[in-house]
Amino acid sequence: MLRLNFKQRGFKLSKGVPVEFRYFRGLNLISSKCHYSTFTPAEPLSIHDINQQTVEAKYAVRGKIPIIAEGLQELIKSSPTNHGLPFNRIINANIGNPQQLDQKPLTWYRQVLSILQYPELLNEEGIKFPNDVKERAKAILKNVGSIGAYSHSQGAAYFRQSVADFISKRDGFPANAQDIFLTSGASTAVSYLIQLLSQNEKSGFLIPIPQYPLYTASIALNNSKPVGYYLDESNQWSTNPKEIRQLLKEKVKDGIIIKALVVINPGNPTGGILSKQDMVELIDICAEHGIVLIADEVYQENVFDGKFLSFKRVLSEMKKNSPHLYKYVQLASLHSTSKGVTGECGQRGGYMELVGFKPAVKDIIFKLASINLCSVVSGQAMVELMVNPPKEGDESYARYISETNEIHDDLKVRAEHLFKAFSEMEDISVDKPQGAMYIFPKLNFKPDVYHKLFSRAKNSNLQIDDVYCIELLEHTGICCVPGNGFGQRPGTYHLRTTFLPPGVEWVERWKDFHYSFVNKYKDMTLM
Amino acid sequence: MLRLNFKQRGFKLSKGVPVEFRYFRGLNLISSKCHYSTFTPAEPLSIHDINQQTVEAKYAVRGKIPIIAEGLQELIKSSPTNHGLPFNRIINANIGNPQQLDQKPLTWYRQVLSILQYPELLNEEGIKFPNDVKERAKAILKNVGSIGAYSHSQGAAYFRQSVADFISKRDGFPANAQDIFLTSGASTAVSYLIQLLSQNEKSGFLIPIPQYPLYTASIALNNSKPVGYYLDESNQWSTNPKEIRQLLKEKVKDGIIIKALVVINPGNPTGGILSKQDMVELIDICAEHGIVLIADEVYQENVFDGKFLSFKRVLSEMKKNSPHLYKYVQLASLHSTSKGVTGECGQRGGYMELVGFKPAVKDIIFKLASINLCSVVSGQAMVELMVNPPKEGDESYARYISETNEIHDDLKVRAEHLFKAFSEMEDISVDKPQGAMYIFPKLNFKPDVYHKLFSRAKNSNLQIDDVYCIELLEHTGICCVPGNGFGQRPGTYHLRTTFLPPGVEWVERWKDFHYSFVNKYKDMTLM
Repeated sequence: MLRLNFKQRGFKLSKGVPVEFRYFRGLNLISSKCHYSTFTPAEPLSIHDINQQTVEAKYAVRGKIPIIAEGLQELIKSSPTNHGLPFNRIINANIGNPQQLDQKPLTWYRQVLSILQYPELLNEEGIKFPNDVKERAKAILKNVGSIGAYSHSQGAAYFRQSVADFISKRDGFPANAQDIFLTSGASTAVSYLIQLLSQNEKSGFLIPIPQYPLYTASIALNNSKPVGYYLDESNQWSTNPKEIRQLLKEKVKDGIIIKALVVINPGNPTGGILSKQDMVELIDICAEHGIVLIADEVYQENVFDGKFLSFKRVLSEMKKNSPHLYKYVQLASLHSTSKGVTGECGQRGGYMELVGFKPAVKDIIFKLASINLCSVVSGQAMVELMVNPPKEGDESYARYISETNEIHDDLKVRAEHLFKAFSEMEDISVDKPQGAMYIFPKLNFKPDVYHKLFSRAKNSNLQIDDVYCIELLEHTGICCVPGNGFGQRPGTYHLRTTFLPPGVEWVERWKDFHYSFVNKYKDMTLM
Repeated sequence: MLRLNFKQRGFKLSKGVPVEFRYFRGLNLISSKCHYSTFTPAEPLSIHDINQQTVEAKYAVRGKIPIIAEGLQELIKSSPTNHGLPFNRIINANIGNPQQLDQKPLTWYRQVLSILQYPELLNEEGIKFPNDVKERAKAILKNVGSIGAYSHSQGAAYFRQSVADFISKRDGFPANAQDIFLTSGASTAVSYLIQLLSQNEKSGFLIPIPQYPLYTASIALNNSKPVGYYLDESNQWSTNPKEIRQLLKEKVKDGIIIKALVVINPGNPTGGILSKQDMVELIDICAEHGIVLIADEVYQENVFDGKFLSFKRVLSEMKKNSPHLYKYVQLASLHSTSKGVTGECGQRGGYMELVGFKPAVKDIIFKLASINLCSVVSGQAMVELMVNPPKEGDESYARYISETNEIHDDLKVRAEHLFKAFSEMEDISVDKPQGAMYIFPKLNFKPDVYHKLFSRAKNSNLQIDDVYCIELLEHTGICCVPGNGFGQRPGTYHLRTTFLPPGVEWVERWKDFHYSFVNKYKDMTLM
């Protein structure tokens, strides 16, 4: 009989165990045969044994605050009557997930998709689907076939043609189906592009600060360099092309080769919208330096005043006037079915249009898409339904228009309501969102409160905005994301919240919390 | 007026252009304001400016032969009556894509999914859906909510519980919903795992040769090392654990740290099935060396004789008998809705179960999943419907059983038919597939034919199996993949074909082609 003294994890041998005991025997009855094993089992891999880029990458939208929120949600679910919390549900304002917050899907989308899932519905006599719904479903089934088959790696040609038609109509300039890649939301497009352009650890990506953390996460995963340019909070989060030119000069000295300029328009998390003049100057920069312009335009439907202007359109105008200057500009523009009035996040539809890339480079993106086989075909169909909706005279048209208007107007009202609430809070400054789904208010605490908060945060290895978000969550159940997850100027602190949650009660709760929070720290005596 | 002489691409200045002309001016009318730009435009990025791993990665399943096939398909479509080809359609035997080849989706799946897309169907009186279909859809809507909302990054808890229940029932050992990650097919799971474990360029992955090229592609993208172990063609493509132990010893000398052992069971492209004894020995190896066992079990429903045995089950038995030896074995087992009788490739459903991983490492995988937000929720629902099908007594049961049996039996008949055809062909040796969807016959040309083919291939910078596949495609429209895309012993040549295409006519065409091909090269005189 063996008597070994192992440490609890990992079979580290304690001192005093004779060497010959380092091998021991297990007996397994396998297939009625005896199986003897003789070896020292190894410990499982630790985080020091794996890809350090995966360890270092951060993703705040589903980071520490949302994880605490999830724990609280579980607690409420498991102990609905005695959870001891001062609220009964979590308000997920951390992520732009409209249907989680009760936004209704558009009937048009869902009727067509139900037929694509079960084409026999076309033969069900009892069913009262509009004619244009049935016709569209038939056209898709005829041209694309079953949504249960892999499509072309770039997405079904029929859907890509619809996207090209949509872009042509939106911009007044032609688009080509061969330049379209259908993707799983816009996230897959971002990861293809960052992966493609990360040549080595000196490859740099110009990203706005604040930014959507998918960019910094993808850059970290690919071991390349984020090069942040600050958006101007004092001027509605506008972009300063001069700063970008300056950064290009500085980074060359450090040996950093800038590969791409990322622009999020309308902005996430800021809600800002670029001026045409700034877009022109950004394109100039890309033309001059041969860097790829990644235009994240997923919030193009979320514009509250005026009309969305795409980079593709501005570039096309510039190309028309000065082809010799702009014909080689490499633009990747991204769109998604997750945002806008569509809000179908879980369906994972999206596309990117690539113009100006060398064919050999585009082939590499095609290969990356091929390795993943294809994006979900029902999501591809959703892109088709988004870019090619019912037209005037179609049976679904009136309902489609009324539903989309309702969602659009509703979002605008919620945005204004939340903006007004923040404007009224002490020690908060906030810009009126021009687009997207978020507000990014600044915590402007006066020196007394600031110092106490700073000290409180430092003691817990946190930042001031972390403390605010954690206390907000603990007291109200509202989950938002600290500004440090998106990037902010050193010494400034922000929050990102969606304005998607319905109703006004949660906003009142937030106001009450804020009042108490500020007063608590005012009254607090530093140890 | 400027007169500049540019090279056609890239504005390279020709000699003799004065330096001051290197800057020129463009005039753009933007927002009714004049915009003057003064710069030398840069060339777009070439493949030398991008991530070389993305350039080097190969993916044969959608590689050169399928790309030629696609071109021919376009030609047939654009010139249906005068394309000049000796066939009128392409037979896509290159990829396991059942519904592209007319396999019908199971009614059970599609009825439930149509309701999830359009829950109003539950209120349509005219509709004749079975009760269990309606009940399941209601349960999903109640527990998961709209499939248009992002789910939990790991997948909706309700679906993960179903997967855990399925595994427990399949194996007779418990499984935990917290260990389940719902993924887009199995491909996403593979890329998370390879990315996670690729610590540096010395990180090695033991992969079978031949293998499914997703593995080599992912390893190349992450700049780590594939370490191939040969499957034994003379013994029904079995795995030799001794060879793997030998490789481990050799690679240590080269400084390679093996991170994982990839096993595909049933095998792709071989159709082979592992013996229990070999599975036990592979687990021993992983236990002793602390390497992750990646068990790609996506073909678990495609087993023609006997019952599928999972690595989770074998590991659980071994753990039960010798916990001290096996409690730290790290197993990632993968499944998918794309294969089996399900065959819903385009719906992108799949899962992986992780056991034995340190919590901190599992957290990193969770973060990778979070960065991608979530897998498509309708695909998650499809996983639920696959692992939790109608039970005896349910209204859908009889239809479900009859449809699944039909698909299963049909595949078996097709496999046998194709096997028989290859067995009868001159200079071909082939193993009867025990599972999966593929046959991997060997081209055994006699020296005379072999030498001529070798010379013909070399002249075009191709391999013998490339030449065979290209000529097969050109003469018959049948698209299959050369063995070199999967890996094969040097000097041997194979083909991978699915047995999914319906009918027998294409097989007869293949036989005729093969006869002519062999005779053509027999009669050929070498220059």
